Amino acid sequence: METIAGFSKLSKSEKIQWLSRQVENNPDEFLDVTRFWLKNSDEQKVFDEFSENTITNYYFPYGIAPNFLINGKIYCIPMVIEESSVVAAASKSANFWLSRGGFKAEVISTTKVGQVHFEWFGKKRKLKEYFEAQLPKIWEALEPLCVNMKKRGGGVKDVTLVDMTQSLENYYQIKVTFETCDAMGANFINTILEEISNILKKDIDATQLNVIMSILSNYTPECLARVWVDCPIEDLADPAHQMSAEDFANKFLKAVQIANVDVSRAVTHNKGILNGIDSVVLATGNDFRAVEACAHAYAARDGQYRSLTSAKIENNHFVFSLEIPLSLGTVGGLTTLHPLAKLSLNLLQNPNAEELMLMTASVGLAQNFAAIRSLITTGIQKGHMRMHLLNILKQMQANRSEIESAKNYFSDKTVSFTSVRNFLNSMKITQ
Amino acid sequence: METIAGFSKLSKSEKIQWLSRQVENNPDEFLDVTRFWLKNSDEQKVFDEFSENTITNYYFPYGIAPNFLINGKIYCIPMVIEESSVVAAASKSANFWLSRGGFKAEVISTTKVGQVHFEWFGKKRKLKEYFEAQLPKIWEALEPLCVNMKKRGGGVKDVTLVDMTQSLENYYQIKVTFETCDAMGANFINTILEEISNILKKDIDATQLNVIMSILSNYTPECLARVWVDCPIEDLADPAHQMSAEDFANKFLKAVQIANVDVSRAVTHNKGILNGIDSVVLATGNDFRAVEACAHAYAARDGQYRSLTSAKIENNHFVFSLEIPLSLGTVGGLTTLHPLAKLSLNLLQNPNAEELMLMTASVGLAQNFAAIRSLITTGIQKGHMRMHLLNILKQMQANRSEIESAKNYFSDKTVSFTSVRNFLNSMKITQ
Repeated sequence: METIAGFSKLSKSEKIQWLSRQVENNPDEFLDVTRFWLKNSDEQKVFDEFSENTITNYYFPYGIAPNFLINGKIYCIPMVIEESSVVAAASKSANFWLSRGGFKAEVISTTKVGQVHFEWFGKKRKLKEYFEAQLPKIWEALEPLCVNMKKRGGGVKDVTLVDMTQSLENYYQIKVTFETCDAMGANFINTILEEISNILKKDIDATQLNVIMSILSNYTPECLARVWVDCPIEDLADPAHQMSAEDFANKFLKAVQIANVDVSRAVTHNKGILNGIDSVVLATGNDFRAVEACAHAYAARDGQYRSLTSAKIENNHFVFSLEIPLSLGTVGGLTTLHPLAKLSLNLLQNPNAEELMLMTASVGLAQNFAAIRSLITTGIQKGHMRMHLLNILKQMQANRSEIESAKNYFSDKTVSFTSVRNFLNSMKITQ
Repeated sequence: METIAGFSKLSKSEKIQWLSRQVENNPDEFLDVTRFWLKNSDEQKVFDEFSENTITNYYFPYGIAPNFLINGKIYCIPMVIEESSVVAAASKSANFWLSRGGFKAEVISTTKVGQVHFEWFGKKRKLKEYFEAQLPKIWEALEPLCVNMKKRGGGVKDVTLVDMTQSLENYYQIKVTFETCDAMGANFINTILEEISNILKKDIDATQLNVIMSILSNYTPECLARVWVDCPIEDLADPAHQMSAEDFANKFLKAVQIANVDVSRAVTHNKGILNGIDSVVLATGNDFRAVEACAHAYAARDGQYRSLTSAKIENNHFVFSLEIPLSLGTVGGLTTLHPLAKLSLNLLQNPNAEELMLMTASVGLAQNFAAIRSLITTGIQKGHMRMHLLNILKQMQANRSEIESAKNYFSDKTVSFTSVRNFLNSMKITQ
């Protein structure tokens, strides 16, 4: 493969042509990526401009989980997820809890955080005096940048000096907390932080103060939602799997406790929660990397990585809950620009950011409930087998009639590469 | 909004029609989601079948970062990411390191893990005796399920009994380690675990042994890649930002050290690494939730959540490295079924799983290098401003000529909602 100068300057078609000359197999496959373009070139341009060096669109299935009862209202949840069974599991959970009071959810706080990281080479006392003397000037300088955010009820909440010298020599922060209302707020926060950093840099020469960087933090443990479901234990009986309500409840509790004490299980357990969360984050044009990083760091906040959900039984009542930091926006960013993100928000009845936090958290809890339920009853493989079987059949280039026969045959058998091959061979022999 | 029974049984068109009747605003917007369908209905069916209750495709920009020199070979990296600046940053980093020896990468190990979680109510000694006596029988039962994986050089590596009773009463695991070669291996692993669990259940009655669940772990700290870049310090001089090589190197080191000691910074720092990683994970049809969960739990493995990258200066030589667990596949799952995942793998010269780990890790390191470089020089906002400005202009419904004028005007000014509105108003006055 060759290097290339000025790739970004090429047109989309030129990029595609250059790439098709670089690959060894199927160069035509590359020329054919235009089939994923939208017919309307203006609308396609919107997607092209989200990022750089774009040549086409990558497709994810856009699915719907109906019947979510959240705080007494019914919602249809848009979910963007490539993994099979996730939408089905969310839908099943939604239906289960629909007749049991639904999901109850609350936002605990929506505070966001940014930091100016710097070194100070003078005396600590001097820095504190300087910072306190400068504070009014800082607030004044931020005023014009906050006009619009203030109108919406947000703005800068607090500006504090943090001594970090116990962790790293000469290291201090100016920690700023924000309320960004319905916006994710990244641009607002970073603009404020860079303004503060510019004040410091102008004011103090570099032999005294060295600003390393100014940036929002994706760790927002105070931008937090809590959601729970609860019902009398007897509502949990699972006759289809010959499980009494008590057996189900006890096994469920044990599964959550295990995810709380064992890191290897906790990671998978929380991954399942985020299968649900991310699908809504994606569908609404929010930033799933930010949500992921924050959620998992939060799971490790006490020094051991643990389950984000917890379960308890009190007075014969089962309670299952999730507490998760979720920094989401419903205005600005992709939420405004991506036609399908707009559509998702419309389907969710145009929520504000807090409402979107509650819905998203509910899907996370629903997902975890469904995952644990199948783990403690039929096992996880049953739900995945259909896709796994199709996958193997496709790799073996089975035809339509072979696929249909295989689906029937394997409905109650263990699927493995070998067993599918044996089945296909036996079909060929009997034909 | 209404509840609905049997939503999954509706055809795609019926689903869309039902949804359009549920939304209060723009019902036609829903009917129009068919514009995102592929023209070829057979190919569209492939996407519809990835998940459940699908109504259309969700689009992400598919971009390309060329000029990645990794272990002496040139690669063009496909990146699927909705966040602006990520592909540009990766490309810049790739170009920077292209003339400085490129990325060096190695796979440390590829071991994967699964667990059967159970309670044992008898004596510990009895369980150990039972397990040791049963082991040959377990290995024998697994044999037929491993035939195909063994042919490819993989299979079950080890089956051990783990005493977890110090964490939770009566709690034990059978921990199984796997080599799954070029497959992510989820179905293989879960099938093996459920087989082991069935043996236990058949053998021992429930008053003695209670299997809670059997499932792979997404925590794979032994499926690990390491990648690094290095150069003489003098190669780091950044005259464009009036920074000497020493200043750049020292500030860079400090930025990484800060991400190592401060959780709030570490989360954002690692989030940036995963911007790069996930874009390749998405483009190749791998599971980004699995990668995210594992990477962040790994970042917290010593009890404090820390940076995944590290930097050092030794003998006037700068070394910047990333160590990250990455469980990826290049066969099976979506890698085989998604036409664009296949295309991505073709562009990457059809790598095996280990090679894909190296490339993906390289993009993560490239991303982090670019992020830290802009943070310690121009600040992060400069790169994001173009998109932010376009966003605000679109919200204010600016026309084409206003957009062009605004782009010029704000090329050297701070963008805020208010400053853009003032600019647009002043344009209207002068017109």
